[in-house]
Amino acid sequence: MISEVKHIQWTKGELLLLDQRDLPTQENFFPCKDLDHVCYAIKEMVVRGAPAIGITAAYGVVIGLLNKYPFETVKLNLSKTRPTAHNLFWALNRMENVFERNKNLSFSDLISLLEKEALKIHEEDIKMNLKMGEFGASLLKKGSVVLTHCNAGALATGGYGTALGVIRKGFKLGKVSHVFACETRPYLQGARLTSWELWKDHIPVSVITDNMAGFLMKKEKVNAVIVGADRITRNGDVINKIGTYTLSILAREHNIPFYVVAPHSTVDSSLKEGSEVIIEERNAMEVKKIKDVQLTPEEVSVWNPAFDVTPSKYVSAIILDSGIERFPYDFSGL
Amino acid sequence: MISEVKHIQWTKGELLLLDQRDLPTQENFFPCKDLDHVCYAIKEMVVRGAPAIGITAAYGVVIGLLNKYPFETVKLNLSKTRPTAHNLFWALNRMENVFERNKNLSFSDLISLLEKEALKIHEEDIKMNLKMGEFGASLLKKGSVVLTHCNAGALATGGYGTALGVIRKGFKLGKVSHVFACETRPYLQGARLTSWELWKDHIPVSVITDNMAGFLMKKEKVNAVIVGADRITRNGDVINKIGTYTLSILAREHNIPFYVVAPHSTVDSSLKEGSEVIIEERNAMEVKKIKDVQLTPEEVSVWNPAFDVTPSKYVSAIILDSGIERFPYDFSGL
Repeated sequence: MISEVKHIQWTKGELLLLDQRDLPTQENFFPCKDLDHVCYAIKEMVVRGAPAIGITAAYGVVIGLLNKYPFETVKLNLSKTRPTAHNLFWALNRMENVFERNKNLSFSDLISLLEKEALKIHEEDIKMNLKMGEFGASLLKKGSVVLTHCNAGALATGGYGTALGVIRKGFKLGKVSHVFACETRPYLQGARLTSWELWKDHIPVSVITDNMAGFLMKKEKVNAVIVGADRITRNGDVINKIGTYTLSILAREHNIPFYVVAPHSTVDSSLKEGSEVIIEERNAMEVKKIKDVQLTPEEVSVWNPAFDVTPSKYVSAIILDSGIERFPYDFSGL
Repeated sequence: MISEVKHIQWTKGELLLLDQRDLPTQENFFPCKDLDHVCYAIKEMVVRGAPAIGITAAYGVVIGLLNKYPFETVKLNLSKTRPTAHNLFWALNRMENVFERNKNLSFSDLISLLEKEALKIHEEDIKMNLKMGEFGASLLKKGSVVLTHCNAGALATGGYGTALGVIRKGFKLGKVSHVFACETRPYLQGARLTSWELWKDHIPVSVITDNMAGFLMKKEKVNAVIVGADRITRNGDVINKIGTYTLSILAREHNIPFYVVAPHSTVDSSLKEGSEVIIEERNAMEVKKIKDVQLTPEEVSVWNPAFDVTPSKYVSAIILDSGIERFPYDFSGL
């Protein structure tokens, strides 16, 4: 069970991260002893997925303080790594609250409390995934074929997964019969990570290239599209991996429900709507090359937004750890 | 000018094909002396693109007869290479007509007439592209941003291109200011071929991954989607590279005209509609690996349809060498 692969491991001041850049061919662990290692790991996608980034950053705070950096420096450096995952800022704020309340304690007592908070953030995330799995599976009919995008699985969270949590629970209940995973260019999280996770858990999965999704919906049975989220604004707009917006339009065209699964830590109630989010644009080389293989001529330019915005009206339901929400969404209370 | 790169070269009994598998990093020519070489070149995508496949097959008939195979064997072997490109069967029929009318001549006279016919098919294709370029460009407003898919360029035809022919002509007239090319997984014709062609011709081009098309249409100016076709049925349904159907839905959603450019040799008036076409499914390894890089775990299955069907009602116009057609289409006269 991949849910038993502990991809984020914390042992007294050292963080071990399963290096997701090397999957599915190698299972290497990336050790983080310094704050720099943690920042590098998030930025360079050793670890990715909004909840997993939040958990990693929480442990990163402990490492940064053990490195004797001031709290503000630690927070600033970690918050600059990836701008879109709301869980990153949510986790840093939780750590900051503990720091502020206890900064007058001895260093070792302070570290011990921060370590406890990071572990709690990690454990709570897994529990939230299990809850969302229950809620989400309740929406599925027996034997459903599900299409998912990117990786919103155990590897993107503390464990179990958001979208893949629903799929795991649904499969256990006989409600999911087959999963199609979009390969998710340019970083191939679907091909490399989602298919690997599901295959390890013996859940039937087929990979398609992203441009096959429309034809798949037209030709074959697809009963639900289920994805995760990197940030959800107050009105229910969903910021998620590039390609999600296209899938929402295709799902609507083919009358297929489109579900988003995310813990409340993904909801950014400070933002009214998706247009307020600045979308991270990543290095052109992610598109132009795969490992050493040059796909696009070096001289040609590339547009590489990492995320897109799906308007709330295209989202059939948002599954939070607190329950199932429907349009019109109002997350001002979160 | 790529239009001056002769990617299909015929010199007295030998066919030289620019090996498109090695682009954009290497410009190698693949020599075809035997019928087997020609069949391999089409099947393994040394050459691809419906009109280019037709032209190659026409030369292949000459080579096959020079190899002393019976005409029927030559035709059968060539027709089995790629099932979708209508131009393949159209070109083989033209060659068969010449063969049937002249099979009582001396072998060398027969070969000479067949060679002339193949050269004529090649030259006519370029002329048709130039015509379609004129017709298509007339539909574009000054400074248009165009999105294209796969490669419907010089490399996919005898020269100049269908969709890229319209873009070339439009750029010359100041009607095209920028081109976005979908990379077109799994075979990456957009990344490897279209961007290379346009860059060589100094036409501004950016590559996007296929899943970015929807967000591009929402965020940035896209004035037209222009694609080629592998086969067009009597009612105007368009069989083209996988991903075309998705683009047609996205274009409609964003009120962007969706144009298909193809010579009359692509129209299969024997078929009423797209659902009658059997879609070629290609090897799973095209999706799972890029060169030696394993993307998807070996054990995971893949769905790999090479083409999809775009219903005629989603197509704003079909640009043929005879002029511009609009819905409802009726190609029973072709």
